[in-house]
Formats: sequence, C-alpha cells, structure tokens
Amino acid sequence: MSLTGQPPESPLPPDPDADPVFAMHRGGKLEVRPTVPLRGADDLSMAYTPGVARVCSAIAAHPELAAEYTWAARTVAVVTDGSAVLGLGDIGPRAALPVMEGKAVLFKVFGGLNAVPICLATKDVDEIVDTVVALAPSFGGINLEDISAPRCFAIEDRLSALLDIPVFHDDQHGTAVVVLAALRNAARLTGRGLGELRVVVSGAGAAGIAVTRILLGAGIGEIAVADSVGILYPDRPGLTDVKAALARDTNAAGLTGSLESALAGADVFIGVSAGQVAEAAVASMAPDAIVFAMANPEPEVAPDVAGRYARVVATGRSDYPNQINNVLAFPGIFRGALDARAPRITEAMKQAAARALADVVSEELRADFIIPSPFDERVAPAVAAAVAAAARAQGFAQPSALPR
Amino acid sequence: MSLTGQPPESPLPPDPDADPVFAMHRGGKLEVRPTVPLRGADDLSMAYTPGVARVCSAIAAHPELAAEYTWAARTVAVVTDGSAVLGLGDIGPRAALPVMEGKAVLFKVFGGLNAVPICLATKDVDEIVDTVVALAPSFGGINLEDISAPRCFAIEDRLSALLDIPVFHDDQHGTAVVVLAALRNAARLTGRGLGELRVVVSGAGAAGIAVTRILLGAGIGEIAVADSVGILYPDRPGLTDVKAALARDTNAAGLTGSLESALAGADVFIGVSAGQVAEAAVASMAPDAIVFAMANPEPEVAPDVAGRYARVVATGRSDYPNQINNVLAFPGIFRGALDARAPRITEAMKQAAARALADVVSEELRADFIIPSPFDERVAPAVAAAVAAAARAQGFAQPSALPR
Repeated sequence: MSLTGQPPESPLPPDPDADPVFAMHRGGKLEVRPTVPLRGADDLSMAYTPGVARVCSAIAAHPELAAEYTWAARTVAVVTDGSAVLGLGDIGPRAALPVMEGKAVLFKVFGGLNAVPICLATKDVDEIVDTVVALAPSFGGINLEDISAPRCFAIEDRLSALLDIPVFHDDQHGTAVVVLAALRNAARLTGRGLGELRVVVSGAGAAGIAVTRILLGAGIGEIAVADSVGILYPDRPGLTDVKAALARDTNAAGLTGSLESALAGADVFIGVSAGQVAEAAVASMAPDAIVFAMANPEPEVAPDVAGRYARVVATGRSDYPNQINNVLAFPGIFRGALDARAPRITEAMKQAAARALADVVSEELRADFIIPSPFDERVAPAVAAAVAAAARAQGFAQPSALPR
Repeated sequence: MSLTGQPPESPLPPDPDADPVFAMHRGGKLEVRPTVPLRGADDLSMAYTPGVARVCSAIAAHPELAAEYTWAARTVAVVTDGSAVLGLGDIGPRAALPVMEGKAVLFKVFGGLNAVPICLATKDVDEIVDTVVALAPSFGGINLEDISAPRCFAIEDRLSALLDIPVFHDDQHGTAVVVLAALRNAARLTGRGLGELRVVVSGAGAAGIAVTRILLGAGIGEIAVADSVGILYPDRPGLTDVKAALARDTNAAGLTGSLESALAGADVFIGVSAGQVAEAAVASMAPDAIVFAMANPEPEVAPDVAGRYARVVATGRSDYPNQINNVLAFPGIFRGALDARAPRITEAMKQAAARALADVVSEELRADFIIPSPFDERVAPAVAAAVAAAARAQGFAQPSALPR
C-alpha cells in the first residue's frame, strides 16, 4: 500500500487478454517437441524401451557419443537467479522466467539452438555453482543471464573452471562483443584505427567491465572508466577488487576527476550506466566523436542532443538508429562454440565474433548504420562461422567418435 | 580389455547410420520451439524487451500469475542421476539422457506436456535434493526417474515436503498405478472383489514397495512380499527400515518361508524382480490365478508356462498380451495434477488414476485384454480427468488470478 492510502497501480492490465503483450504470453512462449515420430509400437520400441538401451550402452562405453546421440550438444541452459532482470532489479526466479523464455526464443530463431530456462531459487554463489555443475550433463552450454554484480563474476569464473562446456554471461560478454563491433565500424567510417581512439566508459558494473576488457583486447590503449563516484584510478579509496583491477589496467593518463571532465577531448563515449551526461560534456569531445549511450530506457544523453556534436550515435533502443542489441551476438557465439564443440568461449572467439559482426555491414556503412539489424539473416551464420573457426584455430575442435 | 585378451564387443554398431535405432537417435529426440511468432521488431519488442518487462512486473506483484504467463505450469523436469537406468544399472547421467529424452517424447505425445531431461552429475541425496529445489521455480512438476533404491525414497520424500509442485517417482508410482488398474480388471473378469484376493509380490525394491502400498490402499488385505531371501516378516533379521515397515503392514498370515511356498493357494502373483519362479509354484496357486510377471527382459515365469495354470497372465513386454506399461499412467497423472494445479500427487489421486485406467476397457475385458494399449487415445484424457477431479475433491484446485 502506498503512503497516500491509495493501492498502488496493479501491473496487470484490467483486461489482459485485450493487451497484445499479455495475450502473447498466455501459457508461455516455448514448447518441447519430439523430433522423431511416435506412430505406434515399433517407434515406441526404438525411441524408448527396449531399443533405447542400445544407445545408452553405446554412450556408457564411449561417452563422447553423447554429443552425437542426444540433444545436449545443441541445447543451452539459460540460467538466472532473477536478481538483476532488465531494469527491474531483483524480482526473483519466477518473475524472471518470461525474459528467459524470450531468450530461448531468440536462441532458436537466430541460432537454431534449443534453450531451456533454468530460474534458480537461490542467490547464494556456492549454491548456484553447485546447482549448475550438477545439471550440466544435460546441456551443451550455459548462458548466465541477469545475475547481479559482483556475484556474476565469481559464478562465471568458477563454472568456467569446473565445466568442460561453454559458460557465457551474456550481460557482460554479449554486450561487449556488440559494442566492439559497432566501435570497429564507427572507427572505420571516421577513418581511424582502434589504437588511435581515446575512450571513456561510464559504468563499472558487469557490462562496463566486460566492454572495457574486450576493448583492451582489441588494442585500444587509452580507456578511462567511471563509476558513479568518478574516474577509476589505482589509489582511489574504497575500490572493490574488481574495480581496483580495472583501475590498474586502464587510465594510463592518470585522470582523477569526474566522468564529464574526462570527456574533454575524448573520441568515444560508451555509456552502460544509469547516469546522465550533460550536453556541455558531449560538446567538449574531440571532432568526429562517437557516442554509444546505452542506458535503458533513458540513454545517458538524448540521441538528438548527442547528434549535434558527435559524428556517430548509438543507443540500446530499437526506436533509434544503431541499436546495440545482444541478440546480434549470443546466438551466433553459442552456435559457433557448439558447432566446434569448444569447451569454453575464449577471448579470441569473442574478438572473432566482433570482427565478423562488424564485417557483415562494412560495405554499407553510414553514420546511422554502423551495426546490422537484429533481423539481418547474415549475422548469426557469419558470427557462428567466425567463432567456430577461432575455436578450431585454438585446437578445440573435437573429432567425431563415429566411424567414417 | 577382457580377460581373454580380446577387446569387448563395442555396443556401437559398425555402421550406426544403417541401424534404425541409432539413426533415429542422431542429434537427440527433442527440440525447444517458440510458440509465438518472431517476424520482426514489433514481435521482438513484445516477446522480449521492452514489452516482456510488463509481464515480469505483473508476476513479481502477483506470483500466482506465473502459472498463466510462463510455460512452467505445463512443463515437467525429468530428473535422474543415471544410477538405475532400465536394466543397465548405474550408467551415469550422460548415458541416461536418451531414456530421459524418450520419456519427454512420451510426456508430449500422450500428455500434451513439455518435459525437460535433467541428468545430474551427482548421486548424493543431499545434493540431488538441493539441486532440484534450486531449479524448481522453472517447472510445474518433477518426475524422478531411474534413481536407485533406497536413495529414491529419501529423495522423493524430502522433495515432496520441500516443494509445492508435484514430485513423482515414476518407477514406483507409475508402475503401481498400472498394476492396480490391471488387477482391478483381472478381478472383475474373474468375478472377484479386490478384498477377496490373496496376493504375493516378488520384489521389495522401489516398484515392489510402491505396488504393495497402492494395493493395500485399494483394500487388498492379504499381501505377502518376498525379496531374494524370502517372505518379509517383522522379526526377520537384517531388514532395512523400509522393508521392516513393509513387513509390519503385510503378511497378516505370518508366513516365513520362500516366495514359492507362499504361492501355494495364492490368487495373485506380482513379479517386479529379477528372480525366476518354478512352474510347480505357479501350478500350486488357487483356481483362476492371476500372474503378472513383469521382470524385463525375462519374465519371472514364461507367459506360455504361466498360462497353463493361470487364468490371466500379464508381463512388462510389448510382444505379449497385457503389457503393464508405465506410459499408461504418468502422462495422464501429471496432466491431471497440473491441470488442477495440485501441489502434490496424493494416494487418492493415484487410486483415481488406476480406477480410470481400468475403466477405459472395462466393457471389453478378455483374459488377454485387461489393460489398454499404450496407443489407446482414450487413456491419458480419462486418467487426467480422474486425477484432476480427485485433486479438486481434496481442495487443491487453485482459482485463477486473472480477472473474470
């Protein structure tokens, strides 16, 4: 009950069936279907007992055959604890399920992969790790989703060390791959190399850290990262371990002030925060500035305002040009990793994904078109092929156990 | 390597793609598919961000809406640790997956429910319980499968107490429901009431215990249970807790000898063991004897031998009449429980399932037709309706949270 004595507005519309969003969600958005016929006793005796026992025995004798004769190698668990769902925060596992179902829809439509929502009734790091390790034999990959920082870092690190299948926190690395792809094309459009750019990242949470790390890996030498207090630098009091490490690896210029002061003369602003940036700060950036204002639903600076000063403007929203959308990355990344049977998704595979994603539209670049549409059918196959090739180049591809 | 120096015969055929069973299993037997269209940006903005956030918020405010607006209420987790798979024993989670996929196929084809195989990398009871509790928010029911005794009892008991969704160990209760249904019809065919029958159960594992319990609940007063040592009686040395409880609740006649000695004059033999029964013991049964010899692949007594003395013979095999097949029970039981949103599957619901299953063919009974075919389309709807009605009679049905 609100303080005024009025009941709070219900988030359920008065007539949900007349609301297209609620009507679409009735009964959920997924189903599990057989891919084999079951027309009679003969089919039953092959798909189930007694025939299935022969397949089980073969896998028991040759465990690598599980990848050939089960659905696991094409199936991803979309795992969340519901602690950081969209902009809604900690809404819990049941309320997070519609997002995870939507993610599974995207895995199928764009990546041709099965995905199963796994919404966990615990936020304890040890329990989450133990649970995912226990259920891992059923899956070919683990997509971590909407788990709040800093727990998401420990969970991903520990699962990656414990499991021999890809573990990928999409809120970090999916975002990072798409940002790098967009920045590659923005730099190309403005005739600069990545190594020439001075970048300011606003936000030192899961996405900000991953974006910064992938940019460092791509050869951008000069990056300053700001959180709500200001620019990160090594001696700043009260830094968490994760931020302290980031401070050591960035900010070669030794900046110590506010985010906005750092923007003076910067080439690139990347916002993955909730904060706002004043028009004057954008105006202080270098010529041909690049602004990715990805806060949702309100970008850090309005695109029309940013456009007065910046050459390229991108957001996270579908109603402006240049949408930085994770769906451009994760379906192809998982598809490529699973195609190659890679045991993990490495930095080289992420860099390859970003390069491939950028290259899809490199011949069509305009200031309002530096990144493909989510519905560009070239994207997922290109990303998947690049990721699989990078995996094979690292020696990950496993030969089939079947006789040839 | 075998002791003879010869490599053991590989369970993988030389040309798997020419083997119908292996060819059918290539890539597994399931897929996850969207049930909503995703044709363009408008669909994306409803099925995923930003539209999905409204559905999440509604569930966060009204948790019971998860049953309306997610797939969980129609989705069952098929959980195993791979420790007692078919007749293969402890083959582990990956080798068990083809069976669990097959089970999921049956859930869909016969029950219209989604089912997801969850094969666990642990056999520790505490870890299994913790894992299933953690992932339960994603599912509407838990089907435990092929978990060895006695761990299966503790796991089912603890999960049933901890969760507010149905938990059902099919190897116990599915078998028990189908046995009771078949016995109802065999008694009907031979003009006897259940209360008049003296029953001998061979096997005191998961299935034998559950069969005995459901028969006691159905009003059969005189049951003796035998394990590999002989008839269970309260003072028998070395009984496990589970068997001691069973000994207290059965064997009112105080039998102490062998299984075969108990068969003298008995009306019903129910075999859910691996042991054999001599022809002379079957010959010693009462007139109009009923023999359910369900050991697989070799029945406790060959059906043609049993048929010389018994009026009704049933097995677990599809190549003889009267197949006792779990698929007659679990799809309808789960469908009924989920339709009624029952928080558990009670004895009354199992008894109702057995009665409904028997009644499907009660007008067509013959000695070689006491139970419907697995492909009889009347079965699952009849079982589901009976189970849902029993759940509602117990006050389990939950009203919809939606405005009417």
